[in-house]
Amino acid sequence: MIKVGIVGGTGYTGVELLRLLARHPDVAVNAITSRSEAGMAVSELYPNLRGHYDDLAFSEPDADRLARCDAVFFATPHGVAHALAGELLERGTRVIDLSADFRLRDTEEWAHWYGQPHGAPELLGEAIYGLPEVNREHIRQARLIAVPGCYPTAVQLGLLPLLEAGMIDADHVIADCKSGVTGAGRGAKVPSLLAEASESMKAYGASGHRHLPEIRQGLADAAGGPVGLTFVPHLTPMIRGIHATLYGRLTADPGDLQALFERRFAREPFVDVMPAGSHPETRSVKGANLCRLAVHRPGDGDTVVVLSVIDNLVKGASGQAVHNLNLMFGLDELAGLDAPAIMP
Amino acid sequence: MIKVGIVGGTGYTGVELLRLLARHPDVAVNAITSRSEAGMAVSELYPNLRGHYDDLAFSEPDADRLARCDAVFFATPHGVAHALAGELLERGTRVIDLSADFRLRDTEEWAHWYGQPHGAPELLGEAIYGLPEVNREHIRQARLIAVPGCYPTAVQLGLLPLLEAGMIDADHVIADCKSGVTGAGRGAKVPSLLAEASESMKAYGASGHRHLPEIRQGLADAAGGPVGLTFVPHLTPMIRGIHATLYGRLTADPGDLQALFERRFAREPFVDVMPAGSHPETRSVKGANLCRLAVHRPGDGDTVVVLSVIDNLVKGASGQAVHNLNLMFGLDELAGLDAPAIMP
Amino acid sequence: MIKVGIVGGTGYTGVELLRLLARHPDVAVNAITSRSEAGMAVSELYPNLRGHYDDLAFSEPDADRLARCDAVFFATPHGVAHALAGELLERGTRVIDLSADFRLRDTEEWAHWYGQPHGAPELLGEAIYGLPEVNREHIRQARLIAVPGCYPTAVQLGLLPLLEAGMIDADHVIADCKSGVTGAGRGAKVPSLLAEASESMKAYGASGHRHLPEIRQGLADAAGGPVGLTFVPHLTPMIRGIHATLYGRLTADPGDLQALFERRFAREPFVDVMPAGSHPETRSVKGANLCRLAVHRPGDGDTVVVLSVIDNLVKGASGQAVHNLNLMFGLDELAGLDAPAIMP
Amino acid sequence: MIKVGIVGGTGYTGVELLRLLARHPDVAVNAITSRSEAGMAVSELYPNLRGHYDDLAFSEPDADRLARCDAVFFATPHGVAHALAGELLERGTRVIDLSADFRLRDTEEWAHWYGQPHGAPELLGEAIYGLPEVNREHIRQARLIAVPGCYPTAVQLGLLPLLEAGMIDADHVIADCKSGVTGAGRGAKVPSLLAEASESMKAYGASGHRHLPEIRQGLADAAGGPVGLTFVPHLTPMIRGIHATLYGRLTADPGDLQALFERRFAREPFVDVMPAGSHPETRSVKGANLCRLAVHRPGDGDTVVVLSVIDNLVKGASGQAVHNLNLMFGLDELAGLDAPAIMP
Repeated sequence: MIKVGIVGGTGYTGVELLRLLARHPDVAVNAITSRSEAGMAVSELYPNLRGHYDDLAFSEPDADRLARCDAVFFATPHGVAHALAGELLERGTRVIDLSADFRLRDTEEWAHWYGQPHGAPELLGEAIYGLPEVNREHIRQARLIAVPGCYPTAVQLGLLPLLEAGMIDADHVIADCKSGVTGAGRGAKVPSLLAEASESMKAYGASGHRHLPEIRQGLADAAGGPVGLTFVPHLTPMIRGIHATLYGRLTADPGDLQALFERRFAREPFVDVMPAGSHPETRSVKGANLCRLAVHRPGDGDTVVVLSVIDNLVKGASGQAVHNLNLMFGLDELAGLDAPAIMP
Repeated sequence: MIKVGIVGGTGYTGVELLRLLARHPDVAVNAITSRSEAGMAVSELYPNLRGHYDDLAFSEPDADRLARCDAVFFATPHGVAHALAGELLERGTRVIDLSADFRLRDTEEWAHWYGQPHGAPELLGEAIYGLPEVNREHIRQARLIAVPGCYPTAVQLGLLPLLEAGMIDADHVIADCKSGVTGAGRGAKVPSLLAEASESMKAYGASGHRHLPEIRQGLADAAGGPVGLTFVPHLTPMIRGIHATLYGRLTADPGDLQALFERRFAREPFVDVMPAGSHPETRSVKGANLCRLAVHRPGDGDTVVVLSVIDNLVKGASGQAVHNLNLMFGLDELAGLDAPAIMP
Repeated sequence: MIKVGIVGGTGYTGVELLRLLARHPDVAVNAITSRSEAGMAVSELYPNLRGHYDDLAFSEPDADRLARCDAVFFATPHGVAHALAGELLERGTRVIDLSADFRLRDTEEWAHWYGQPHGAPELLGEAIYGLPEVNREHIRQARLIAVPGCYPTAVQLGLLPLLEAGMIDADHVIADCKSGVTGAGRGAKVPSLLAEASESMKAYGASGHRHLPEIRQGLADAAGGPVGLTFVPHLTPMIRGIHATLYGRLTADPGDLQALFERRFAREPFVDVMPAGSHPETRSVKGANLCRLAVHRPGDGDTVVVLSVIDNLVKGASGQAVHNLNLMFGLDELAGLDAPAIMP
Repeated sequence: MIKVGIVGGTGYTGVELLRLLARHPDVAVNAITSRSEAGMAVSELYPNLRGHYDDLAFSEPDADRLARCDAVFFATPHGVAHALAGELLERGTRVIDLSADFRLRDTEEWAHWYGQPHGAPELLGEAIYGLPEVNREHIRQARLIAVPGCYPTAVQLGLLPLLEAGMIDADHVIADCKSGVTGAGRGAKVPSLLAEASESMKAYGASGHRHLPEIRQGLADAAGGPVGLTFVPHLTPMIRGIHATLYGRLTADPGDLQALFERRFAREPFVDVMPAGSHPETRSVKGANLCRLAVHRPGDGDTVVVLSVIDNLVKGASGQAVHNLNLMFGLDELAGLDAPAIMP
């Protein structure tokens, strides 16, 4: 069994890791830390886990204990992995970071968006961006993974085939994204109250959002040059799910777009290109480590529309983190990730 | 008191008309028709109206009875107003049609999207498109009003200032729209069940939707020429509300976009240009005849983003219909429409 | 115009007062206070009010300013009205308190449930419990009103006819109540997040809730002696609404229960006894100052079931407060309270 | 591998069976029938199953094909299992019926509630009521299982300890139950629309519901005599979940109620007695085959309150059906049923 630890396990990505790992045949959770809830049983905070992990309680972060794990997940706010990852790596523990700490290669850009200097620039050289559909082979060799953000996962997977093929105007790409409220985390904030966020829809961050540079970096890699992206996220009255609606302008006759997408993801276990004409629903991936895609070309015009849905807590966070773990340790990619979505 | 009738009053726009007219100081509802519910008291179908309209029951459609009204609202599926409007107009009753029957000037396009020939082409000449922010003076003189659709209202109001000023590339406009489920009407359809539509988000009609030609017609009028529009509607898990996110490419230095929008709607009682940097929420217009707008220019780049929210049943249907009535009969524009939105 | 002030106007009962008073023909809001938001325009915190109250901003609590009002509403946590009500009454300003400060006649019980000594026992003698269906004449003469709580309103109205008529065993009454989340206020608490409270149902306070003594006091007044009540509140995934399901054991042949209820509330403008066999929905009173009731006797057995629905923010709080104001100042009882519920 | 068939697989219990069986190590689904969708791939109707069951399509009901299965689930409206079960049993195929066809032992009562004569009275003698917590040993030997209804499961599990111990007055038991909308099935009915059922709460069937005789039968078995039950179900704005709030009057000093409940279910893998003072949430069992219980005695009085939550589609239907299958075929009881609930 592979021994894993979780740092900062009280948030939504933490409990989702526990839910997924409860069914993982090759993994045991040996430690879970939380400063605020140290001493509390995991199943007391998350009663859905009663009957699982009955001996597991939150503990104070403790490098010795974590270093005895084969791998440690960080499900923390930004900055925490900067402080701890180096020591763990030195002591031979691999790190899978669900926060933004190692996603951007440009430390100045990181500092700009996160309002503090980058805390571990010396580790960036070996940090691998954990999008398996792009970096599978690097992930297999990696010691330090930066798990992609939720919006970046949905947007990149939808645009990769078009940008890699050079089919759309890279200067003018639009990503109109709709996210359930768990994207905002488990913090007690008025705008996240049911009474505030339910029965309503709103955009936010229309003039700039922290996921923008991450998406741009990934798209630029695919396009082989800078990408002009307009990204508008929206808060949607649901718990889980991201729906990215992506617009690009075709620069040439695209041929068979459906075939292009199917070919690109033919061997990807966690990307499902739906039949032509489909409109994927976010609920079709609820609880599952999947991205479902559909590609449209309205009126056979010069605009291509891609619809991309994920569960922000699974393919957009914890499920993708487990996928990375499976790759890093040579396990079956599907291990712990083979349950169908729950619907209705 | 102005006597009004409602044809097809059992749907959501019908009950919303009744809710609004219950507070209208100058209007009395004299007749409401429904083939399926004839004989049933209005308050039996809509218990929120108990204590109002206690003597009003649905009746079989009856041209004589309707013709005794000063004005008749059609809250019907397409085709019904085609059949009845002519007779009512001849007998001196004005017609305010909430359906799509008189929205498109091009009868062939109408036939294409609605799958049947246009039933009253002879009336198109005098039909006025009831968007007061564009046609206020024509509405005052009109006998026959085509009330705009819900998506068309939200999209047009958001794009008018830019297109009238010639500021954006009219060939490439994108309208990414999110609607609550009442937009699909009160029909018993599986995809509209709470168990299907809740906790999920999906696009629909990405390759074509009946509101597309209506929006294009209105935008072309504003732009003074054809507009290339990509319109993708989405079903959102909420009862009421439309959030239109509109993307245009600036063709020149736009100057002060905020001022442009404020100027355009300075005298409009039902359009609220919010302060710069705002993100309007659909709940801020729930139950109210309002469109709230915000304009953004991310990164001072060449893409302008307009956020436009309405309540699809009010400014997107019944409230706008009452506004048209007020204009046609020389009443205070705000009559019956001055209640604040309900929040939370 | 009657000049009113609102103390603590940032919560849900505060904004609901503003929404209702915006349409009140005889009332002007002259002051609204909030320590935390002093200086902020009301419409900035509550964008649904943009276009109404444009000159009104939150101010620091200031007894002089409040004392210039004819009446002051307290929409505050418990304890605040204790501190301020006395001075306002002395200076001739009437007080309508939406908090629990003056609801219980027994100061020791108050201290037990609220964890602090009662702060104004000398005012209890003149405090009137503002349930118009019981105390209408006293309210007309009152200077100080304790507006009933939301659960107590729904439960008392449903049980009054049975207890006043001595028809049920007063020792064993059950109130199973379901409330929307606004009942918990606008505080930023994790259990009130959409991600926590949506798609779930739970009881709380099964072993004791602050509304229990208030309900018991009111029921005892109706029964002419102590009432043994089991009260279990539940958190329901909706914004507004309370559904009280009330169970009593008949002690004798009840005769025509429907007629009993209709007679009891025949002249009450804000209580609607629905036809026999009805199941009132909370949405049928959304936004309206109404309690709708239905009475059932399953299998003609010895158990009577009463279904009672209100909007917790209207008939359960701010609407009832305005009703009290209308009575105190000799206005039409319906003033500001005559809009139908919003449905769907 | 045990070969199973599903009759009537297009409804919510059908898709939930498929979801659970997808992870079952010992079961293969060989046939699934639906008259209305014959020929359609399962994953076309239920896109959450794309990637699972890729070769499985709905077929016309066909006794030969079904008889080649080891067991057949009926996820059908009432009456269908009556018609087909006999032939399958004769041909050696075991039957697990999720409908109401074999739940009531009294055929006259069945006819009264279902409006038609019982169609297979000759099979009632061997039908076993599939509540494992009561009938485990009989289930192991059974050929024909009547899977309990959703409300009956939640109510019986909550009351069993009290009635078996003779601790409450059996003449006056109250079950106030709240169910998500999937309890009403996947039929296209107006009251189940999101626009109708969301943001609202209502009781239904207060004067009688088909689950009443089933619950009474089960409770009478536990009590050793007839039970006087008042059962009021409520429609709750959520997809899944039942919350039963159960009230009984203690007839003697109950001693340690918590210990009584813990003892009763000590060896039950799918019943979780929560710590004293708990209030279980329905979301804590979402997607899981669990009933979580808490017992309260407010004010140490003579009323006991039991809180019982299940997922109506899992422990209330398909999960319990799989549990029965596991018992009938000597498999691990947990097989296919060991995933934690999904939360949030």
